Amino acid sequence: MKQPAKEDQSHPLFRQVYEYMLNRMERGEWKAHDKLPSIRGLAEELKVHRLTVFKAYRELTDSGKVYVKDKSGYYVSPANLLREERTVEGAAVPAYSLTNPMSDIQRMPVTYQFSQALIDPGLLPNLFLSDYVKKVFDLYPKVMGTYSSVQGDDELRETLSEHFHKHYRLQLSPQELLITSGAQQAINLIAGLVLGPMDPVLVERPTYSVALDIFRRAGARLIPVEITPEGYDLEAVEALMRKFKPRMFYMNPTHHNPTGYTVPARQRKQLVELAEQYRCLLVEDDPFRDIYFGEAPPAPFFAYDTEGWVIYISSFSKYVAPGLRICAVACRHPFMERLITAKSLADNGSPLLNQKIFLHYYTSPRLQQHLGKLRIALQVHKEIMEEELASSGWEWTAPEGGLNLWVKLPDSVSASALFARSMEQSISFVPGELCDPLGEMKSRLRLSYSFASETLLREGMRRLMKLAREL
Amino acid sequence: MKQPAKEDQSHPLFRQVYEYMLNRMERGEWKAHDKLPSIRGLAEELKVHRLTVFKAYRELTDSGKVYVKDKSGYYVSPANLLREERTVEGAAVPAYSLTNPMSDIQRMPVTYQFSQALIDPGLLPNLFLSDYVKKVFDLYPKVMGTYSSVQGDDELRETLSEHFHKHYRLQLSPQELLITSGAQQAINLIAGLVLGPMDPVLVERPTYSVALDIFRRAGARLIPVEITPEGYDLEAVEALMRKFKPRMFYMNPTHHNPTGYTVPARQRKQLVELAEQYRCLLVEDDPFRDIYFGEAPPAPFFAYDTEGWVIYISSFSKYVAPGLRICAVACRHPFMERLITAKSLADNGSPLLNQKIFLHYYTSPRLQQHLGKLRIALQVHKEIMEEELASSGWEWTAPEGGLNLWVKLPDSVSASALFARSMEQSISFVPGELCDPLGEMKSRLRLSYSFASETLLREGMRRLMKLAREL
Repeated sequence: MKQPAKEDQSHPLFRQVYEYMLNRMERGEWKAHDKLPSIRGLAEELKVHRLTVFKAYRELTDSGKVYVKDKSGYYVSPANLLREERTVEGAAVPAYSLTNPMSDIQRMPVTYQFSQALIDPGLLPNLFLSDYVKKVFDLYPKVMGTYSSVQGDDELRETLSEHFHKHYRLQLSPQELLITSGAQQAINLIAGLVLGPMDPVLVERPTYSVALDIFRRAGARLIPVEITPEGYDLEAVEALMRKFKPRMFYMNPTHHNPTGYTVPARQRKQLVELAEQYRCLLVEDDPFRDIYFGEAPPAPFFAYDTEGWVIYISSFSKYVAPGLRICAVACRHPFMERLITAKSLADNGSPLLNQKIFLHYYTSPRLQQHLGKLRIALQVHKEIMEEELASSGWEWTAPEGGLNLWVKLPDSVSASALFARSMEQSISFVPGELCDPLGEMKSRLRLSYSFASETLLREGMRRLMKLAREL
Repeated sequence: MKQPAKEDQSHPLFRQVYEYMLNRMERGEWKAHDKLPSIRGLAEELKVHRLTVFKAYRELTDSGKVYVKDKSGYYVSPANLLREERTVEGAAVPAYSLTNPMSDIQRMPVTYQFSQALIDPGLLPNLFLSDYVKKVFDLYPKVMGTYSSVQGDDELRETLSEHFHKHYRLQLSPQELLITSGAQQAINLIAGLVLGPMDPVLVERPTYSVALDIFRRAGARLIPVEITPEGYDLEAVEALMRKFKPRMFYMNPTHHNPTGYTVPARQRKQLVELAEQYRCLLVEDDPFRDIYFGEAPPAPFFAYDTEGWVIYISSFSKYVAPGLRICAVACRHPFMERLITAKSLADNGSPLLNQKIFLHYYTSPRLQQHLGKLRIALQVHKEIMEEELASSGWEWTAPEGGLNLWVKLPDSVSASALFARSMEQSISFVPGELCDPLGEMKSRLRLSYSFASETLLREGMRRLMKLAREL
C-alpha cells in the first residue's frame, strides 16, 4: 500500500492557498518575473488570515517557485514550474489534490477487517436475492440489452417516492429522484456542480474521509463544523455561514460516520432555516437511517425543507444489496436538471439490471423481515466490540445506530503508529486523522464492527489492544 | 425536450475565451473597475488570434460585463456578474459549459429511432444471458453482498488481458486494466485527470458529441483534426501538436463514429511516434472493432505503443450486454494509478454482479457464435437503410463497420430544420452539427441503423425522406 503522506491527509489551509497560487502560475496567469500580489492583498481576496498567505509564500519560496527581490515583494521564478508529481507521462494533470487514502487502506486484504463500514455479506439474504434475479429475467427478458434512462428506471423511482413518503415522511415526486451508483457518485456529481477552486464548503468534524478527498479534488476549502452527541453548535454554524458564505454543507446527521451521533430534530428545522437564509445547500448523506438499535431516528432534514435547499442522498443499498450499488438522490428543480446532465456525462445512467433487481427485492415483505434480523445481528456485533474494549481504558460514546465505534486512545498512543503496527498483523482500521478536515484527531480511530464475523471480531480486538499496550 | 441552443452546440473559440474571462471575473480574480489585459496581451497569453479575443471582449461589452473607458482599455463592470443560468438555487456552479444535447435527444421516446448508436435488444441473446446469471449465483453466492475492488474484479481483468492478447495483439497485464461503467465514464475520468480550463485537446471532426460535451465541461479548448476515408492528414496533426502542445488527442479510429471511417495501419504507427515526440496522450475509444462487415480492422494504436502514450478504451459491451455497462480501459503505469484513484472517488468501483455475469458470458463459445450472427444482422440493417436512401440524392460513404451512416443532405436542406420536423413525426436522428467541434456541418446527419427493427427502418426512412423533400 502507498502510505498516505502526511500532507495529503491534513491539507491545511495554507496548502490550499499554495496550490491555488501554483495553479495560477502553471496556467500562465502569473508568468516568470511577474510581481505577485501582496500578502495583505491576497489575504483579503481569498478571505483568509495573512499568516496563512505568508506560510504559502514561504513554502513557494522554499521550493524555488517564487523569489523575493530587494524586500519589494514576491516574484515568480523563471524555473520550470511543473512539479514532478503532476506530470503523468508528460501530460500535466489539474493542480488539485488527487488522493483517497481510505481506498488505499481498503485495497489491502486483511484478516481482521475493521476499516470497512460494510456489512458482513454473510448477514445478507443472498439466497433470496438470487430468486429475485430470476424473477427479473422473467419479467423483463430484454433487461440485459437495454440502457436505463439517465435519471433511472421509472418504476424504481415511483416505488421509492412512495417508500420515502411512507417511511421517512418525505414529499417528493419520481421526477425529484435520480438513481446513482452509490452515495459516493452522488457526492462526486454534486461537488462537481457546486464547488470550484477555493470555494468554501462546510464539513462535519470528523466526517467521511472520501467526501473530504472529493472536495479537495475540486480545490474547495474545507470549513469544519464540530459534531458532538448533542449535534451542532448552531450559533457557530451561523457565524461560519455569515463569514464564509459557503456554497454547501456536507452532512451525515443520522448515526453519523464515524461517531454514530444523531443531530436532534429541533436542530434540523433550525438549520434548514439557516440554509435558506444564507443560501447554503445542505447535502444530507443518510446511509445509516435504518440501522438503529433503539428508537427510529428523527425525520431527515429534507422533510423540513420547503425551498429546495436540501439534497438528500439515500444509500439504503448498504443493507439491501451492496453489490448492486443503487443509491437515490432527492432534490428539487432546477438543481435536478443539472444533476441529470452531470450524470449523463459521467456514465449515461446506472445499469438497468441492477435497478430492476433492487426494485423487486426492495418492495418484498422479505426485506422488512431481513432488516429486523439485521439490526439485531449488528447490535450483537457492536456489543461484542464494546465488551472487548471494556478493559482497554479507551473511550467512546455508545452509538444508537450505524456501523462504527469512534474510539479515543490514551494520549500516549498515536493511531497512526498503531495503524502501522496493526497492518503488519493483518488488522485494519481507519486512523482518525483521515476523518478530520484539519488532519488532527491523531489519538482517534474508527472501528467498524459490521464486517468481521463474531469470532474474528473478538480475536482481532484482542490483538489490536495488545499491540496498543506494547506501543 | 430542451432544444439545444445554437451557442451550446457550436461553442466557438471566442466563446471559450469569453467563458474563461467571465470565470476569472466571477471568481473575483478580476474585480469591479479593474483594468483588463490588452487584446494583444491576452491573445499572446492564450495563444489565440487577436480577433478571437476582440470578439470575446465585444460580447462581454455587449452584455454589460465589461465597459470601455476613454479608449484607454477595457474594465470590469460593477454590476452583479453572476449570470442567471449559472445560479442553481442560489449556489453558483462552476463556469464551464454543462450540456449534453445528445442525451436530451435520446431522452425523447420516438417510434423511428435513428439517433441511438445502440443495438436492437431483440438482436442480443437475452435468453442465454439469463442462464449465465443463474450460473453466477451458483458460483458466487455472496456476489450481491460484496463490493468489487476499485480497479475491477481480478478474474475479469485476467480474462480480458488474455483476450486482448489473443484477438487484438495487445500485450498487457491485468494490472494495466481498469473496469469502468461504460466508455463514457472512462472518457470522463481521463478528461478529469488531464484537462483543465483552456487546455488544448485534439478531437476528430466530426466526432462523438458527448465527448465534446465532457471536454467543454472541463473548460478545454477543442482543436479539430479532420477525419476522411483515408484517415488523418498527419502533417496537419503534427503542425497542431507543435503549435498547441495539446495534452491529449481523443480518437475513435476504427469504424469511426459518426462516419464509419477506419484509420489505416501505417498511420497508426506514425501517429504513435508523433504522440511520443510531442508528449500528447492518444485516447483511443474503440467500441466498434468487432462490428465489421468485411475484413477485420487493423490492430489498435495501443499495439504500436511502447512508451505509454496510448490509453485504450474497449467498450465491447455494446454487443455483449449493454445493460451491464462493462468497459475496460488499458493504460500503463503511472497513469493507471491516477485513474484508479479517480475511479475510487467517482464511484468506488463498478458493481461486482455485472462484472461476474459479463465474465462468464464473455468467455463462452456462445458469444463468438452470437457475434457472427450479429454482424450479418447489422449488415442487413445497414443495407436496408442504404437501399431506402438510394433514391434520395443524399450522399454517404458506405461504412465497413459500426452502427451509423454519416449522410450529407442537399445544400438546400438544413439538418436542424429537418430534425425539428422529424421529431414531430416521431423520427429521431443526430444533427451533424452536434458531432462537429466547430458546430458547423449543418447539412450532415448521423443515422443509426442498429436500433430500429427492419420494418421500422424502412418505414421511418421513407417518412424522413418525404419530410426532407417537403422542406
